[in-house]
Amino acid sequence: MGVQRTTLPGGLRVVTEFVPGVRSASVGVWVGVGSRDEGPSVAGAAHFLEHLLFKSTPTRTALEIAQVMDGVGGELNAFTSKENTCFYAHVLDDDLAMAVDLVSDVVLRGRCRVADVDLERQVVLEEISMRDDDPEDLLGDLFIEAMFPAHPLGRPIIGTVDSVESMTRSQLRSFHGRRYTPDRMVVAVAGNIDHRQTVALVERAFGGHLGRDVEPVPRRGGAARVRARPELKFVKRDSEQAHLSLGVRAFGRHEGHRWALSILNAAVGGGLSSRLFQEIREERGLAYSVYSSVDTFADSGAFSVYAGCQPENLAEVTTVVREVLAQVASEGITDDECARAKGSLRGGLVLGLEDSGSRMNRIGRSELNYGNHRDIADTLARIDEVTNDEVRDVAQVLLARPFGAAVVGPYKSARQLPSSVKSIVG
Amino acid sequence: MGVQRTTLPGGLRVVTEFVPGVRSASVGVWVGVGSRDEGPSVAGAAHFLEHLLFKSTPTRTALEIAQVMDGVGGELNAFTSKENTCFYAHVLDDDLAMAVDLVSDVVLRGRCRVADVDLERQVVLEEISMRDDDPEDLLGDLFIEAMFPAHPLGRPIIGTVDSVESMTRSQLRSFHGRRYTPDRMVVAVAGNIDHRQTVALVERAFGGHLGRDVEPVPRRGGAARVRARPELKFVKRDSEQAHLSLGVRAFGRHEGHRWALSILNAAVGGGLSSRLFQEIREERGLAYSVYSSVDTFADSGAFSVYAGCQPENLAEVTTVVREVLAQVASEGITDDECARAKGSLRGGLVLGLEDSGSRMNRIGRSELNYGNHRDIADTLARIDEVTNDEVRDVAQVLLARPFGAAVVGPYKSARQLPSSVKSIVG
Repeated sequence: MGVQRTTLPGGLRVVTEFVPGVRSASVGVWVGVGSRDEGPSVAGAAHFLEHLLFKSTPTRTALEIAQVMDGVGGELNAFTSKENTCFYAHVLDDDLAMAVDLVSDVVLRGRCRVADVDLERQVVLEEISMRDDDPEDLLGDLFIEAMFPAHPLGRPIIGTVDSVESMTRSQLRSFHGRRYTPDRMVVAVAGNIDHRQTVALVERAFGGHLGRDVEPVPRRGGAARVRARPELKFVKRDSEQAHLSLGVRAFGRHEGHRWALSILNAAVGGGLSSRLFQEIREERGLAYSVYSSVDTFADSGAFSVYAGCQPENLAEVTTVVREVLAQVASEGITDDECARAKGSLRGGLVLGLEDSGSRMNRIGRSELNYGNHRDIADTLARIDEVTNDEVRDVAQVLLARPFGAAVVGPYKSARQLPSSVKSIVG
Repeated sequence: MGVQRTTLPGGLRVVTEFVPGVRSASVGVWVGVGSRDEGPSVAGAAHFLEHLLFKSTPTRTALEIAQVMDGVGGELNAFTSKENTCFYAHVLDDDLAMAVDLVSDVVLRGRCRVADVDLERQVVLEEISMRDDDPEDLLGDLFIEAMFPAHPLGRPIIGTVDSVESMTRSQLRSFHGRRYTPDRMVVAVAGNIDHRQTVALVERAFGGHLGRDVEPVPRRGGAARVRARPELKFVKRDSEQAHLSLGVRAFGRHEGHRWALSILNAAVGGGLSSRLFQEIREERGLAYSVYSSVDTFADSGAFSVYAGCQPENLAEVTTVVREVLAQVASEGITDDECARAKGSLRGGLVLGLEDSGSRMNRIGRSELNYGNHRDIADTLARIDEVTNDEVRDVAQVLLARPFGAAVVGPYKSARQLPSSVKSIVG
């Protein structure tokens, strides 16, 4: 059966996937707008708006919205990324119609009342404080800032205290009015559902918001225009551990080599048998948490390593990480590692797609980011096709790029960081 | 089909559940031993051992264990609680035999080599540092300590820096030898599996460890012997937010009222429509994260509220929380709230049991904690049967008990805390 798509007037896309064996349905209304679409003065607007829309609609108060969803034991939530915003509900299949209606109502008709803007501003400021109190979260934002200086991708999704404090109702309403248009939206539904019935529910829920026949806004594309070199960023915290991220800019979504990079990532720091886990944790006991990861945006990305360790061990950890990366840059990974990484991706892919929530996420994101859907057999075949030569080339190319880094920890200043850290950024 | 159980020689129980529609299998080897079984001098032994056993077996190195699991994209991990330890793997159904063999090998034959003890000691100390750097995690441990002073339940699962630093190989080996016996163990397997085939795999994997015919060790029971009154605990942190937990001791697992307490919890602070979420976040914007929760142990438990807020708002947050609890103590919850809470529990229960991992957790825990298995229809019926009068009685009884509390935040000392906090503990 696979993924089914219907495009409604106004350019709204509805994508669905039937998931055998489940009694649930996941409904996501995706909007192709995120923090990279904000100007600096409204940094955090997409995320702020995501909060605000839940506060009321013309026919429902925030309490009524919450009561309806709690009453059936469903989950109602939303998240904002650099490029997309998703409002979603996970419910029993019997409650599909309610979920489609409720989530659509919030997205389309969420009001931005002055009193709510001020209340929710406080909540977002609390969320910023929470992020600041979690060294690993803080480091994550800091690292992306170090990798994309003076570029919209580098700004934190949540905004800054200043931008959130000064955001006005009219800025948020205008952001909503201009960006939340049906041609930028995808309704993704997965679970024990039927495509035609789901489309009818969406038509009814969107009603007058559908508009005239227009094409959906094309997927994001283009080449990255990140000109500034990656930097070293440091924030002082009186923490027990020092937290380090370092890495390079990687491929955008449409540049290819996606699976070769995933294989490299798995072998370097993706699992328990990866080089970093073995060298840093298993052989030396230097960290509890150490891993590599890949971020992918439309036109750029990042490949990075994280480790948290005792401050006095940061120099050693950094040296070992850099040695592991240097070795991979010059020699690539072994054929055994490549085979194991492929197995890891294959298994992870299949195991990760059993519930309706992850299916909904996959098809919603895929429709917005790629405009098409690959079935799992096809994806598995693509993973199989990657050669270790391609992985070696990717390692060689990426790891020759300029590095950026970020540290959160108990040092007086960036100058007090170990020289192995300071020399990462050339 | 439901849950099937076979008891093998040595008292080892194998419980399985077929999950329709999935292509995966989850295997958990549960041991009925946790941090409450430790003496103070070996605080953290159960958790330390959980780490250590992965380091090698007579036939596998840590690297080989990791490679086998990574090669099929499976997940291999473990967790330790106050009462149980669980080693588990989540794999594709084709890899079931490997997973049963691997997890059993680690649990039964994991070696405790001196070099590994010292390496893993460093990793556990890093984990303690991580916990210390996360205010909400730190608060969680602090609060349970406040609720169960001088009682094994009050000690942190992870141990202390002192106990972990001084733990010896022979203490850990002896803990393993005495506690990890088949009569205290349950192998729980859920997914696309067959009971008889699974039992055969377990028999082969356990081999000579099964031993003679004995009865399984009975479930934990008994009445709580927590004599000391709950306390107020404070840890200073230069954090942006102040973090507060407060609550009362609640029922042990076999005391009844389980679902009435769950309904109370849902209505007070379980979801978006709950009183605490509405009063603290939606109406006043004082917190991003605020909720209530229930901890249940064999012979005691806790009902508690968490909130994170700006330090200058802690007094107001505490006052509002106490007012909400006082009102519920005197008036109970409304019939609407009771009905909604039931719906929430029903939906959450069904939605939460779609994947093999959560099924495995449910049957493993149920076998160790209750020694029996209720099917979901039966559980749903029990939720339905609860009357609002029972919920009112539970609220009245529990909330009249002495309160304990814990705070992590930027105050000079416990004496500087707002009086609304200090007066929680009478």
